[in-house]
Amino acid sequence: MIIVLKPDAPADSADRLLERISSAGLKPLHMPGSERVVLGALGDERVLAELALDGDPAVESVKPILAPYKLVSRELHPHDTVVDIGGVPVGGERLAVIAGPCAVEDRDQLYDSALAAKQAGATLLRAGAYKPRTSPYGFSGHGPAGLSILREVADELGMPVVTEVMDTADLSVVAEQADALQIGARNMQNFALLRAVGQTRRPVVLKRGLSATIQEWLLAAEYLLSAGNDQVVLCERGIRTFETATRNTLDLNAVPYVKGRTHLPIIVDPSHGTGLRELVPAMALAGVAAGADGLMIEVHRDPAKALSDGAQSLYPDQFADLMRRLEPLAAAVGRSL
Amino acid sequence: MIIVLKPDAPADSADRLLERISSAGLKPLHMPGSERVVLGALGDERVLAELALDGDPAVESVKPILAPYKLVSRELHPHDTVVDIGGVPVGGERLAVIAGPCAVEDRDQLYDSALAAKQAGATLLRAGAYKPRTSPYGFSGHGPAGLSILREVADELGMPVVTEVMDTADLSVVAEQADALQIGARNMQNFALLRAVGQTRRPVVLKRGLSATIQEWLLAAEYLLSAGNDQVVLCERGIRTFETATRNTLDLNAVPYVKGRTHLPIIVDPSHGTGLRELVPAMALAGVAAGADGLMIEVHRDPAKALSDGAQSLYPDQFADLMRRLEPLAAAVGRSL
Amino acid sequence: MIIVLKPDAPADSADRLLERISSAGLKPLHMPGSERVVLGALGDERVLAELALDGDPAVESVKPILAPYKLVSRELHPHDTVVDIGGVPVGGERLAVIAGPCAVEDRDQLYDSALAAKQAGATLLRAGAYKPRTSPYGFSGHGPAGLSILREVADELGMPVVTEVMDTADLSVVAEQADALQIGARNMQNFALLRAVGQTRRPVVLKRGLSATIQEWLLAAEYLLSAGNDQVVLCERGIRTFETATRNTLDLNAVPYVKGRTHLPIIVDPSHGTGLRELVPAMALAGVAAGADGLMIEVHRDPAKALSDGAQSLYPDQFADLMRRLEPLAAAVGRSL
Amino acid sequence: MIIVLKPDAPADSADRLLERISSAGLKPLHMPGSERVVLGALGDERVLAELALDGDPAVESVKPILAPYKLVSRELHPHDTVVDIGGVPVGGERLAVIAGPCAVEDRDQLYDSALAAKQAGATLLRAGAYKPRTSPYGFSGHGPAGLSILREVADELGMPVVTEVMDTADLSVVAEQADALQIGARNMQNFALLRAVGQTRRPVVLKRGLSATIQEWLLAAEYLLSAGNDQVVLCERGIRTFETATRNTLDLNAVPYVKGRTHLPIIVDPSHGTGLRELVPAMALAGVAAGADGLMIEVHRDPAKALSDGAQSLYPDQFADLMRRLEPLAAAVGRSL
Repeated sequence: MIIVLKPDAPADSADRLLERISSAGLKPLHMPGSERVVLGALGDERVLAELALDGDPAVESVKPILAPYKLVSRELHPHDTVVDIGGVPVGGERLAVIAGPCAVEDRDQLYDSALAAKQAGATLLRAGAYKPRTSPYGFSGHGPAGLSILREVADELGMPVVTEVMDTADLSVVAEQADALQIGARNMQNFALLRAVGQTRRPVVLKRGLSATIQEWLLAAEYLLSAGNDQVVLCERGIRTFETATRNTLDLNAVPYVKGRTHLPIIVDPSHGTGLRELVPAMALAGVAAGADGLMIEVHRDPAKALSDGAQSLYPDQFADLMRRLEPLAAAVGRSL
Repeated sequence: MIIVLKPDAPADSADRLLERISSAGLKPLHMPGSERVVLGALGDERVLAELALDGDPAVESVKPILAPYKLVSRELHPHDTVVDIGGVPVGGERLAVIAGPCAVEDRDQLYDSALAAKQAGATLLRAGAYKPRTSPYGFSGHGPAGLSILREVADELGMPVVTEVMDTADLSVVAEQADALQIGARNMQNFALLRAVGQTRRPVVLKRGLSATIQEWLLAAEYLLSAGNDQVVLCERGIRTFETATRNTLDLNAVPYVKGRTHLPIIVDPSHGTGLRELVPAMALAGVAAGADGLMIEVHRDPAKALSDGAQSLYPDQFADLMRRLEPLAAAVGRSL
Repeated sequence: MIIVLKPDAPADSADRLLERISSAGLKPLHMPGSERVVLGALGDERVLAELALDGDPAVESVKPILAPYKLVSRELHPHDTVVDIGGVPVGGERLAVIAGPCAVEDRDQLYDSALAAKQAGATLLRAGAYKPRTSPYGFSGHGPAGLSILREVADELGMPVVTEVMDTADLSVVAEQADALQIGARNMQNFALLRAVGQTRRPVVLKRGLSATIQEWLLAAEYLLSAGNDQVVLCERGIRTFETATRNTLDLNAVPYVKGRTHLPIIVDPSHGTGLRELVPAMALAGVAAGADGLMIEVHRDPAKALSDGAQSLYPDQFADLMRRLEPLAAAVGRSL
Repeated sequence: MIIVLKPDAPADSADRLLERISSAGLKPLHMPGSERVVLGALGDERVLAELALDGDPAVESVKPILAPYKLVSRELHPHDTVVDIGGVPVGGERLAVIAGPCAVEDRDQLYDSALAAKQAGATLLRAGAYKPRTSPYGFSGHGPAGLSILREVADELGMPVVTEVMDTADLSVVAEQADALQIGARNMQNFALLRAVGQTRRPVVLKRGLSATIQEWLLAAEYLLSAGNDQVVLCERGIRTFETATRNTLDLNAVPYVKGRTHLPIIVDPSHGTGLRELVPAMALAGVAAGADGLMIEVHRDPAKALSDGAQSLYPDQFADLMRRLEPLAAAVGRSL
């Protein structure tokens, strides 16, 4: 860690800060320059973060040298983690395709949508029984009843299921029915939920927050791993920017960036990442070309009548067409379906 | 609501959509233009939102006419709401000043910080026992033990207390000790928490999310009101933008904008809104000039040793100086301290 | 165009506005609702934009129905435009690969870099003689002398050249030496430059501005077309967001979105779009998978010594490796190199 | 400057880089840590920026210690600069109020608007003869004819005039008629224009770019000062964020931040900063409370008929009312009108 002092910092500030660095067990460094005094602290920076040196009135800025995450880092754990969701590996050579409707609306809607997804090649089922909705007047899912339908259909079709948990109070009931727990974008920094999910042994799909930096996202994953759960799949689903033509800006830069820094698998959700059905296929292909380990895609038997996310859900034939186009592309980047 | 059809929409699309509008109890309108067919739906748009017409493949875009919130709207409720936090009104002519340290660290730290705040003129105390931290390795508060200290100091000094609740599981214990519940920026769209807090009778300070639009913020408030709790104070605390010189960008535009649209009071948090101690006084003054009903400011007896947010916490004498400068400014805009 | 009146608009406002709509030659519509009066105006909205109805105190909001651009729109011109840059087509089945160093530093540096680019398969050469630099103390290019070197090397290697023009005063000298003129991100809304470049007959590569919406970008292209120049290639090069891990956020959503709305070709610049050499290959592949008509990539014979953009420039062997990986991927999406 | 090496950097990288640092005349430092090798370079960092060490494949990151600007910095020049625009000081105790319509539409419109501004207390006149417009079909100003009207009205009313210059080709004609040259937000990084304006002796109002960091803005000012012109007024006019309720997000944090770092005066433009007439007065007051040295406000004799920016222009009586409210507020923060 590098600590830059203010030009007008009192003469004894450096000594005082160096002593705090020392007493925290780090190696202090003193680098007096002509325009600024710079201090260094070598060792485990996570200790120093706790010192909160940036609160000191003599400090102009603090510049970390190391990433603040540890367990998720590839430096510590160089080999790719493969997460097992109900027998389907996520993170290996084979791409994982998670598909299904936004929400469990009723048994028939879910069955038909899931069947279409499966027939086209999806290996995992997605659908929500608890839906985060911007307005209190929106359809917010059928809760436990929705979970039962989801489990039943999943078992009937032999597709392991990924579904969202929104609150620690619902965790045990969701964990009982789901093969993997999804933490949604709006809950990426719901730290109580992260800790609780980290204590289950269910695999997790951790979506990136709407305005989360990649570093914050990896620290959210660190919450899960530090609580004992290393079965974590990251999911890039678009960030919020000034652009309004699309619902979000799918940040595919994050895919190779994250692959270089963490051993965890990463998948891409082009449905939320674009918000527009017509853009989903192109961005699904782009996600795989960028190096993603899989895709999460909304497919509904009749999007025009969907209770939520209809505008970004694919029709069954559009999804089937996408899967056909995905095959040669996957092969071109050394992956398979 | 206005529905614009795609240029290549099949001829029968308009009829089909008009029928759906009709059957939802709204008045349908047909406006065929030379380049686009435009449909209208007059009536309560919240019904239409449920129809999710944007999922229809014939629809190019859907443009709402009315705001999606209702109970928080000034149209329905023209007079200003004054929220009562332990006897201190928020929303009237007198400015509410909520001050105190970021976190309850120990009894002495809290007492000294709170006393300094009170002596300078603060009427409400803030401090967290549950702290959201980006890293799992950060100090996350003392929980129930912190709450007890907080209550004790608050009672001793006669300052009602505002403190954060982060999870539905902690709600009853926090509600027992707090005069007002704070919902933090990262939880603004934790809908389970919003519903649960809406069912308590405690006043709420609802912070704006880091990337929440004003409309989403008001809809989060609508969750609280629609669950039965109308004692809601909005708190602008900065949004996330590309600017990195400051921790957040304090969006003071939101103050007059929100005042024009809702009857709820709004306060400003220049500590989180800037992240830099040296900017806090100027932005506190600016917040009041913009029309805020109060301020929430971090004050610590010794920020250089604070366990969190030290860089943005004021020293007691800086806070006292700010309060002195605030007085004539408040008077200039027709408010008092 | 839809005009929503304020709830408290005076009774005669609607008539007054309908008259202005009529007198502008559009068909006025009156839709009185229970909560808002809504007006419509059918016809060429570009006429209405000039009326600036949003300045009227009775107007709450104005919602356009049609896109504000016309000549660049696919609605008017359904077939893909293929731009010819010195004999190399951009926009057809074959991908255009534009490569070369950020800046012309000297003849040897340019020659070596360009030769490496050509040998690996690039068909067009890029390099700047006029460089926009954030600081006045940075290397800003060799100007006319740089252009001469560029022309000479381009001719020797038989590569048509794309180079930036930054000011109307330099336009004639740049246009004389370049096969295509680049308008940089910072100049995307330099309207004087757009008009002047639109009056030349040189093909143009129009980079998207750092904070330009797609609509603003297409309107910048509309400046060029409306001035008479329809040889325009759009270039997505990343937008500015809150994410700081990468230099910009490459917005690949823009590729399929733009392809659906305009007939102009679009290419992707993963060098500026990421700012990090290690991410360039993955994002180049992703750009092509998303449907781009080509790529613009920085390649330098020795990036460690580059005077600008070294951190995002590929080494010659990295570029050659990328070109090898690009071939099967291009085939998988129906394109060739 | 601090240079962090990659964990896998070859052993000789440090020596190689230290040598480059030395040969550039800086003092090199070697700090080998357990997880990273860190290098330091003490001295004038602007020299090092030219070395572009971040292009080196062994370098993970480069962290500057000093600000990259120099002439605009308060470290070098501690006393406030007062800029003189036609006899009206900007930057002293007295607030400068620049008001007038967005554009010169015709003589009467300008005269009436300017007269109203003057009678209410404005001391400087603003109006554009060259208007940047997003669409090529918008009203882009009357050019030289507009300038003549502007000069004439300004002289008649005795108000010095600030007007925008958009292109180097128009600079001499604009400089002849204007008391101060405005560089608009979209041209903040038009470096050719900055250099050319820097060579005139006209005062400059430099607006912040829509997505410019404060550092980039100060570097744009550095272009002007390094070209010889130190009569520069900074103008915060809102930045582009995800929020769509307002046209821009007025970043008042920038006011105290900039005041702490530069000696140049700063003013605030609440018209562009909000885009909504109803928010302008509150944000004008907030700007002054934040410490601004003045305001730039759009006032039009009849905004409902304005050819541009009507929605954010004040009616004459609204402006007069604002000026009355501004007086006690200015006094409360130690300023006068």
